[in-house]
Amino acid sequence: MTARHPAGRRLRVAVDVAGADLGPAPVVAGALAAAATVDVTLVGPRALVRPLLPAGAPPPGVRLVDAPDVVGMADEPVAATYAKRRSSLLVAAGEVAAGRADAMVTPGNTGAAVLAAAVRLGRVPGVTNPALATVLPVPGAGPTVLLDIGATATAVPEWLVEFAVLGAEYARCRLGLERPRIGLLSNGHESVKGGPVRRDAHLLLAAMPGYVGQIEAYDVLGGRVDVAVTDGFTGDVALKMYERTLDATVGLALDAVRAFSPIGALARERQRRVTRAVRSGLAAEAGGALLGVRGVCVICHGTAQAADVEASVGIAAECVRSGLVGRVEAAFAASSRRRRVVRPARVDH
Amino acid sequence: MTARHPAGRRLRVAVDVAGADLGPAPVVAGALAAAATVDVTLVGPRALVRPLLPAGAPPPGVRLVDAPDVVGMADEPVAATYAKRRSSLLVAAGEVAAGRADAMVTPGNTGAAVLAAAVRLGRVPGVTNPALATVLPVPGAGPTVLLDIGATATAVPEWLVEFAVLGAEYARCRLGLERPRIGLLSNGHESVKGGPVRRDAHLLLAAMPGYVGQIEAYDVLGGRVDVAVTDGFTGDVALKMYERTLDATVGLALDAVRAFSPIGALARERQRRVTRAVRSGLAAEAGGALLGVRGVCVICHGTAQAADVEASVGIAAECVRSGLVGRVEAAFAASSRRRRVVRPARVDH
Repeated sequence: MTARHPAGRRLRVAVDVAGADLGPAPVVAGALAAAATVDVTLVGPRALVRPLLPAGAPPPGVRLVDAPDVVGMADEPVAATYAKRRSSLLVAAGEVAAGRADAMVTPGNTGAAVLAAAVRLGRVPGVTNPALATVLPVPGAGPTVLLDIGATATAVPEWLVEFAVLGAEYARCRLGLERPRIGLLSNGHESVKGGPVRRDAHLLLAAMPGYVGQIEAYDVLGGRVDVAVTDGFTGDVALKMYERTLDATVGLALDAVRAFSPIGALARERQRRVTRAVRSGLAAEAGGALLGVRGVCVICHGTAQAADVEASVGIAAECVRSGLVGRVEAAFAASSRRRRVVRPARVDH
Repeated sequence: MTARHPAGRRLRVAVDVAGADLGPAPVVAGALAAAATVDVTLVGPRALVRPLLPAGAPPPGVRLVDAPDVVGMADEPVAATYAKRRSSLLVAAGEVAAGRADAMVTPGNTGAAVLAAAVRLGRVPGVTNPALATVLPVPGAGPTVLLDIGATATAVPEWLVEFAVLGAEYARCRLGLERPRIGLLSNGHESVKGGPVRRDAHLLLAAMPGYVGQIEAYDVLGGRVDVAVTDGFTGDVALKMYERTLDATVGLALDAVRAFSPIGALARERQRRVTRAVRSGLAAEAGGALLGVRGVCVICHGTAQAADVEASVGIAAECVRSGLVGRVEAAFAASSRRRRVVRPARVDH
């Protein structure tokens, strides 16, 4: 299937192929695989990318845009963004801003990616801070959108309300839900739980359609909500705890399967089956969508493999086709009319 | 084996048998099982407890102390503590304070349990807030102490430093480590990560023996640290995310095992084996130790089964035998001499 823009032409996705933990090779491989369904713009240092292309040149449907500067994982985002004006991140975001691409995908430094997207694409009016959202599958129930998973580490109640609006639109676009159920991630269900930031956010959210109240981390995978809202610090901890626990559990389950399996091909097949069942049943999506900027930006793991990059391009394409950005703009245009000010509780990790 | 006090007599543990989610029956059953190795004091409404005892009376090694008030899970901790002066929580803590028990165990309302212990036992001089610590097994490496998992939801940098001292002593007592490696749970390894609270705590912790720096949630199960330090809000989210992911993964692994197993007894045996391997390899300890109060207090899940209560009594016994409270007092007496004041960054969830 070829992913098409609502206007009928093939989608164009700019892929930042520099700055990933594993180097450009798997990113380029994933982007080339994705070129089967969308037009791809590879963004990175030309000299680094060319040798990775078949016959040393971009195949049909693939463009190469030179971006000589690379932002590394250890770079401080703000300093790097201002010092490296021709970084693959800023150039990729610039492709989207200039209308030469419909979306960008990056496995680079998250903080710098958020900044590049905010600077080049701009924020949606009414959005103070962008949020990064992922989709977690839930066994026996529909998946859950978790946000923010790392775009904005600090939170005040109003920002959490903005994240709830962003998450609801993401659930509408990605999960096809008309009225997603929204929970505020806290340390208990009672309204006395959480500190002043959660309690104030809880009061503000009470007016939001679909808001079910404060939830516990259990509920993120519990089928009780479609959207779990938190600040980027807590979301980062929750997601990484989830991913690491999943890995560790799969490892132990495999050991147990091995213990009662015959040696050889059958044992390996059984282990593959367990791994596949658990990972496909629980692994978070390969890429998170950056919400609240005026363009589609998907950020994937710094250690993304080719398949993860390809999947992230697919997520970006879905965001474009479902009109995510326009829906977010419309939601904030509507909600700004009922905005009110609260006391300045603030969570600063 | 009979658990003995360093002084040579059998240990005495007060068990709060009221206020658990599943009612008093599993708690009493677990406490009676624990009475094989320690002397047990059952604390709760007499009329509720008596019918659960064999022959309607406490067997040898078991006392029953009446506490007519029950603090429920939905009760607001401060209000309940002041209104219910004869609650099983305050009476159990009072048994320890009066020297009639060496430790207390409760599956009740965590906030009220923390308050009851702080009020009746007092805090260790130098400790601003108690912290609740659990032990997580790590496949292929030594276990990790995670704290705070819910005693103190708000954090300032100095409190996180206190938690690090508490966690280090807990690791010494429970894991037998002389110089535990301590990490500060954050959203990245770099010192620019975290907000002002983590960054200030990071600077303060730099002087602490064994401190390895800021860690990510991955590292909590990564064998990189022995103690992971965080505030009670983040710790609650991390632990519950962990527990729920573990449950979900085991469920999916079992489905996969079932798919290639013959029907019947052999399939059930294989499923049991996978469940046991994964749970024993990864499940958090049944009870968390409340650190920073002048007595041993172990708080277990509100949904604790009899075996969890019995295991929690075992944890309490280990804390007493290893001289946890005295070691914490000595650590704070030493650290208070090098304390200094920082700017008042504060995290308020």
